[in-house]
Amino acid sequence: MGHRIQRDKRVTTHVALVARAYGADEIIITGDRDDGLIERVRKVVETWGGSFSVRFEKNWRKVIKRFKEGENGVVIHLTMYGINLPDIIGEIRDLWRGGKDLMIIVGGEKVPGEVYGLADYNVAITNQPHSEIAALATFLDWLQEGREFRLEFPNAKLRVIPNPRGKTVLRIRRD
Amino acid sequence: MGHRIQRDKRVTTHVALVARAYGADEIIITGDRDDGLIERVRKVVETWGGSFSVRFEKNWRKVIKRFKEGENGVVIHLTMYGINLPDIIGEIRDLWRGGKDLMIIVGGEKVPGEVYGLADYNVAITNQPHSEIAALATFLDWLQEGREFRLEFPNAKLRVIPNPRGKTVLRIRRD
Repeated sequence: MGHRIQRDKRVTTHVALVARAYGADEIIITGDRDDGLIERVRKVVETWGGSFSVRFEKNWRKVIKRFKEGENGVVIHLTMYGINLPDIIGEIRDLWRGGKDLMIIVGGEKVPGEVYGLADYNVAITNQPHSEIAALATFLDWLQEGREFRLEFPNAKLRVIPNPRGKTVLRIRRD
Repeated sequence: MGHRIQRDKRVTTHVALVARAYGADEIIITGDRDDGLIERVRKVVETWGGSFSVRFEKNWRKVIKRFKEGENGVVIHLTMYGINLPDIIGEIRDLWRGGKDLMIIVGGEKVPGEVYGLADYNVAITNQPHSEIAALATFLDWLQEGREFRLEFPNAKLRVIPNPRGKTVLRIRRD
């Protein structure tokens, strides 16, 4: 989440594509709207399938509060200062499997202190400094216990056929 | 690996920090030297501990060939076009546990075609487009089966104490 600090477009694009590839339904980017970024992500969805959506919201605080008012939402903030993933993922997975919706907040150093209090869980993907992109990937991978590798992305125009030595891409014609 | 294409410094920094936090020994960045990048990574090592090293090499082809000449090296290229991780990680893990050194190549769209042939394994972290940063994290996590969460980083000046609600950082004095 951006918070009066310049968002790095490339990093935000990586976050969005990881969210999609690892099984999230939607990304909400807070702060100033960037139509180029939205366009890039939508193009990936159009080409590679699935129903991942992307939107901007000016105010990160409202986004979190509205989600919490739904009373079915659990807010998870990924931060190197939180509880280490292996110590808490079981509890979060149970909530999720029990039908709770999860909102996962990433933003690295740009996250304001208030988020630590608004989050139901502050979760560390190792207590070392690294990358919100990697943190999101590892969280979603552990949450789903690797099931994201079996995700299907319907209505794709292109599909990769795994190849040990090069690139094989299937172009799917729709009539 | 950069290859006559502008490297994104922020993305390369994320790759380096993920490599360190998830247990790699060293990162070799190919292409043009960037002292600022080296400095940033070394500062993280100095502050947060461990012995992770970073260096530049102009020529990516030489780096790979020299590594392969050692005859104890296995070259793994992470690409969305490769064999999906769950189908190949067991074989790679066995090689690694058997004493082989692994070189992991990431670089996204910038990787020249020749790398697909030089690599012993082209591995896909899902066959969807996303991020070399996430790909590296997930590969190292699956390789070590989560053991990277128990890594120790000796000689740290700062250490995080996991905190469910805020930031707790231990400053370690050395006499």
